[in-house]
Amino acid sequence: MKKAVETQLKTNVAIKVRFSETDSMSVVWHGNYIRYFEDAREAFGDMYGITYLDVFSNGYYMPLVSLSCDYKSSLRYGDEALAEITFWNTPSAKAIFKYRIFNKTTNRLAATGSTIQVFLSVSDNALSINNPAFFENWKQKMGLL
Amino acid sequence: MKKAVETQLKTNVAIKVRFSETDSMSVVWHGNYIRYFEDAREAFGDMYGITYLDVFSNGYYMPLVSLSCDYKSSLRYGDEALAEITFWNTPSAKAIFKYRIFNKTTNRLAATGSTIQVFLSVSDNALSINNPAFFENWKQKMGLL
Amino acid sequence: MKKAVETQLKTNVAIKVRFSETDSMSVVWHGNYIRYFEDAREAFGDMYGITYLDVFSNGYYMPLVSLSCDYKSSLRYGDEALAEITFWNTPSAKAIFKYRIFNKTTNRLAATGSTIQVFLSVSDNALSINNPAFFENWKQKMGLL
Amino acid sequence: MKKAVETQLKTNVAIKVRFSETDSMSVVWHGNYIRYFEDAREAFGDMYGITYLDVFSNGYYMPLVSLSCDYKSSLRYGDEALAEITFWNTPSAKAIFKYRIFNKTTNRLAATGSTIQVFLSVSDNALSINNPAFFENWKQKMGLL
Repeated sequence: MKKAVETQLKTNVAIKVRFSETDSMSVVWHGNYIRYFEDAREAFGDMYGITYLDVFSNGYYMPLVSLSCDYKSSLRYGDEALAEITFWNTPSAKAIFKYRIFNKTTNRLAATGSTIQVFLSVSDNALSINNPAFFENWKQKMGLL
Repeated sequence: MKKAVETQLKTNVAIKVRFSETDSMSVVWHGNYIRYFEDAREAFGDMYGITYLDVFSNGYYMPLVSLSCDYKSSLRYGDEALAEITFWNTPSAKAIFKYRIFNKTTNRLAATGSTIQVFLSVSDNALSINNPAFFENWKQKMGLL
Repeated sequence: MKKAVETQLKTNVAIKVRFSETDSMSVVWHGNYIRYFEDAREAFGDMYGITYLDVFSNGYYMPLVSLSCDYKSSLRYGDEALAEITFWNTPSAKAIFKYRIFNKTTNRLAATGSTIQVFLSVSDNALSINNPAFFENWKQKMGLL
Repeated sequence: MKKAVETQLKTNVAIKVRFSETDSMSVVWHGNYIRYFEDAREAFGDMYGITYLDVFSNGYYMPLVSLSCDYKSSLRYGDEALAEITFWNTPSAKAIFKYRIFNKTTNRLAATGSTIQVFLSVSDNALSINNPAFFENWKQKMGLL
């Protein structure tokens, strides 16, 4: 656990608020933050070599089993945001990410959140009770074990 | 062709404008009409026995190759709309639909549009040059041949 | 609290899974459940006389400040779902809803979730520390006070 | 007209296909290309100093009145695309854009399209019969008049 704190995997990605993502209140519709979380996971996967396609090529899906989001301030059309993502190391067969979304101009926190994903075998749709080998290997490479 | 005019397949479906479908101008974002067209195709499929799942179970996908939409008046959050869909009979290996979307309360036309779909074999992704047998059978049953 | 249990406001709404709501895993993309929660809130508002437009005409917005969703089983294109919504009575100036989404055919639980909304004045964007008068009146009418 | 050909305003923007933009056929859902067109208009606005916010600050909205898209080949999750946008100069009070979307890796054309926008006064929602002054000025600056 001590090591996990020392080796915290983290990255961030710039988000440009799309006009289509706003609603009648002129702010980003709350459900669209879930897309920003996904953009952040993408950036994380690209950065640390564990994209959805990598996972899939290892025979797994990683569906979400849990999601939460807390809204702190609004984002508007024209705003640029920064989505920060942190990998939360856990021994169980899960991938946990924490998120913070900032207004890039004001540095104001717009939202925080978290997601939990599990491993499903592509071949038989079975849930992995233990971390798949590829994920253990990745953790090792990242200094998380 | 004469027969096609006589036997015009048509249906409609009620649409409740979702808050998440509006944009900062407080009207339905233009891209969301494409979802309404899809809702209308669903209703058509249910009505005339030719849903996506029917098509798929016959070994085909029906991807869109063309789409157009003309916007006539805005829909707002809280509005109820009616999406009308008409099958446009053609001898070529295509499914052509025409759409009209109305504000249900005012009866005002909100948009018109059309889509063209082709047949792709699920097994080899090949484009059908001729109408697949299941589609010919369906047309026959509908009095369109 | 006892009263809140006695007078539990609850409703549900049928959801037809849209093709556009599915993803490459052939299941409903997790972010789209947030739309189903919104559909459920709409149905609740229609049922108990407290739609977004009612709220707005009383001078308030009700933005979300918190959202969570737990995924239990997948929904697929062609599935019909049922979104059940329950109002969670609280003395604080918030509207809390709990959700359960079922596969209508199998009755299997697909997801659970909750949302918390606060009251913002339309005129000055100020957060209400106490329940607005219209909301207190509504609660009274519903037997929740 | 000759001048319009000489001074062709054009730009492009990189698109990363989001997982949430794919559908059960494992390709980008056709309606999401409309978002890519919007991304391209954003890039165009940033490049040539005519963003939605510029337009709005001049007292106008620019709603779409027409949209078309022709699909040539599929985009998949993980693909990077390029959305190219060209301003189509016309003397009438409209903004016409043409689009081409390419798979960035294969250079294969994925879609073409066009949009037509008009000018609505923010103050009274009236349609502009002539080009607003700010738009004429912009055209002049761009060498399009």
